Amino acid sequence: MTDATLTGRLRDIVGERHCLTDPELRASHETDWTRRFSGRALAVVRPGSVGEVAAILRACADAGVGVVPQGGNTGLVGGSVPRGGEVVLSLLRLSEVGVVDLEAGEVTAGAGATLSAVQAVARATGWDVGVDLGARDSATIGGMVATNAGGVHVLRHGPMRRQLLGFEAVLADGTILRRLPGMPKDNTGYDLGGLVAGSEGTLAVITATRLRLVPRLAHRAVAVVGFADTASAVAAAADLRRTLGSIMALELFTDAGMELVMRHASVAPPFADRRPVYLLVEAGSEDLEPIDGLVAALEPFGVGDAAAVAGDPAGRHRLWQLRERHTEAMNAEGVPHKLDVSVPLARYAELVDQAPSAVRAADPAARTICYGHVGDGNVHVNVLGPAADDESVDHAVLELVLELGGSVSAEHGIGTAKVDWLVRDRGEAAVAAMLAIKRAWDPAGTLNPGVLFPGS
Amino acid sequence: MTDATLTGRLRDIVGERHCLTDPELRASHETDWTRRFSGRALAVVRPGSVGEVAAILRACADAGVGVVPQGGNTGLVGGSVPRGGEVVLSLLRLSEVGVVDLEAGEVTAGAGATLSAVQAVARATGWDVGVDLGARDSATIGGMVATNAGGVHVLRHGPMRRQLLGFEAVLADGTILRRLPGMPKDNTGYDLGGLVAGSEGTLAVITATRLRLVPRLAHRAVAVVGFADTASAVAAAADLRRTLGSIMALELFTDAGMELVMRHASVAPPFADRRPVYLLVEAGSEDLEPIDGLVAALEPFGVGDAAAVAGDPAGRHRLWQLRERHTEAMNAEGVPHKLDVSVPLARYAELVDQAPSAVRAADPAARTICYGHVGDGNVHVNVLGPAADDESVDHAVLELVLELGGSVSAEHGIGTAKVDWLVRDRGEAAVAAMLAIKRAWDPAGTLNPGVLFPGS
Repeated sequence: MTDATLTGRLRDIVGERHCLTDPELRASHETDWTRRFSGRALAVVRPGSVGEVAAILRACADAGVGVVPQGGNTGLVGGSVPRGGEVVLSLLRLSEVGVVDLEAGEVTAGAGATLSAVQAVARATGWDVGVDLGARDSATIGGMVATNAGGVHVLRHGPMRRQLLGFEAVLADGTILRRLPGMPKDNTGYDLGGLVAGSEGTLAVITATRLRLVPRLAHRAVAVVGFADTASAVAAAADLRRTLGSIMALELFTDAGMELVMRHASVAPPFADRRPVYLLVEAGSEDLEPIDGLVAALEPFGVGDAAAVAGDPAGRHRLWQLRERHTEAMNAEGVPHKLDVSVPLARYAELVDQAPSAVRAADPAARTICYGHVGDGNVHVNVLGPAADDESVDHAVLELVLELGGSVSAEHGIGTAKVDWLVRDRGEAAVAAMLAIKRAWDPAGTLNPGVLFPGS
Repeated sequence: MTDATLTGRLRDIVGERHCLTDPELRASHETDWTRRFSGRALAVVRPGSVGEVAAILRACADAGVGVVPQGGNTGLVGGSVPRGGEVVLSLLRLSEVGVVDLEAGEVTAGAGATLSAVQAVARATGWDVGVDLGARDSATIGGMVATNAGGVHVLRHGPMRRQLLGFEAVLADGTILRRLPGMPKDNTGYDLGGLVAGSEGTLAVITATRLRLVPRLAHRAVAVVGFADTASAVAAAADLRRTLGSIMALELFTDAGMELVMRHASVAPPFADRRPVYLLVEAGSEDLEPIDGLVAALEPFGVGDAAAVAGDPAGRHRLWQLRERHTEAMNAEGVPHKLDVSVPLARYAELVDQAPSAVRAADPAARTICYGHVGDGNVHVNVLGPAADDESVDHAVLELVLELGGSVSAEHGIGTAKVDWLVRDRGEAAVAAMLAIKRAWDPAGTLNPGVLFPGS
């Protein structure tokens, strides 16, 4: 089949206006949010139903052309843009959000629904989505499931895989798998939804999801606390996770990061006393005011003047800004290299403290800013300075992570960016086991070629 | 290879005393706890290391003999006893429990460690295991992961799959997969641990696990409340799950079940007023006394005299007995048919109310007792009366479950008992997708033949 024949067939499936071949219309689908990854697509198709998704996959399989599934294109590892010549399958039109099951706390959402759209529907009914992240207005539920997105509440509610009660997805040969609505407890064979979650579009195209919701918290309190060094902050975080029943989020950032946030986002410091490392602690409850418990839990750490606590929405928002606007502040300084890694908690402080010197050894002019979800052992290492295609600092950080027994991707995934690291991280046996599944479900390698596996 | 050659090779691997061929020594491994499932084993082998497990699997693959992995043999669906002529691979010697990582709240446990052994180690350090169930003194961690065991705290902490931070397992060809310690956030390819969890020994033999722990609760309170009908109890349960922040467990049982518990387990009723349906609600907290909140949350239901609340250990234990001793009370009346099913919460009351009449239509003399984890949509339907091999009542219940859009196995799994129901429940496409994975990892069908898939 020629490219033109395939394009014609795709037009027949989705209609003229949903098969984009004009370079200008394709452009926003061909480069991702990081500006570090881009490639040319044969076409961008926007199906309006699961049946159309199946037909597109069959057409592409027949033509031997790869398919790159795409949601909000907010990924950070090059997994949702074409490498060259593939068909981009945009799920944005499958954006329907169903009616919330009020008693069960569940909702069905199309793959193309944005997180904020689902949050709005859920919150109107006293429920909420268990995962939240900064890209909520663009990131889609399908993409978030495909990458097993995490965010700030993983320590409380788990990542997207954990929110998935049911799913609908299409295999490479056009077979539709459907388990909607799905049940919280369902031990009927392999956990196919959990397998597709985090498979980064290499096993199936997710078209709809049944999500468990979590109670919308009536009461919240946030504290930011300064520490003299990373190890003390990590020890405090570990202690809070065990003793503070209302804990919702545990974030760490450094004074260097806060400096950038204050410069670029016009955010005031939480207190006059500056400290090298800060913890942001959020507590929440369905039925009780958590602020007294939060203050009491912080007392043992003798943080004195280096603590700010807020129970009111404006005050909480102000403290959260110190952490949430890190991404924006980094981007204002340049195009950062973003390494999203995790290590066992016992090595967390070592990673945060050693990453800057490991980076400087590779590039003496580079600046390193670490922040992240300390409650999950997750660090976002941001490096400013090196050119976008200079990977020496990335290598330095990932080598350090492997030395510390960590994972080269905590929540962003492998994409195309970290393909060379997958075997080093997981080992030959595990990658071979993954590849056996990939070949069993997608023998021709149609789905997201080049993602996860080299040369796949 | 003859059977004798294989047995000789197995003896060489594990040593004479850990290769049981004497019928008397084999017996306890050949019949399960339900007394409904049994079969003859060629031998029972008890490896002492992951290397021995790998060698056993290679030997059995060479001989073309099936392997039945076995933990505490407490399963309820015939998945851990031989069908006839297989080698039983007992993991009981791999029972080591490591040192708790106090800061991270994690522990490494061998597949053969019992749940109660891991609980004891965890609780001594201020942590606890997220899953608890009645068979805790016999059930092993490996078996619990392999069957994705649930229990009473799933609504709070999720099932075993959710506790698995890392794992070690052996594939059918002897390949060892190892991801220990494992990290809470780890998006490096497919979730192999989550796939092996719940695969009932058909994909790999689990040899060790890294478990996340949960804070040991310092404060607990338990209430038992009576309701005029099932629908009111389910509505109250749904409400409590959304509004009571400290909720730990939500169990439902009926007056017919409580009658049997009182008769066989000498347990006193919770209050003088008998009601058709009861909820047991457990609340807990790391740092706050939850009893006032529990009482306040129950107030809207106007349950009047039909409520008992306890904050002290003896009182809580007494109330829990009403629910926990159901299993023992059933067994005292005969060999019950145990159907473990789930339905969407909106259909829960229908299932509980209609199951007895559906059963009576199949066997007018049968008695039906329902109880279960209403917080997860999970019902245990117990039927007393019919002979062990009379499956007509099982069929009646499972047909009703499918009509209500439910799952034929909530937490016990498919085993050999429900093999014929898997396709009806999940559909041809999903089962074909599972079988493709099975064939990719175990092409000769060595691991747990006859479990999950008919004729596998």
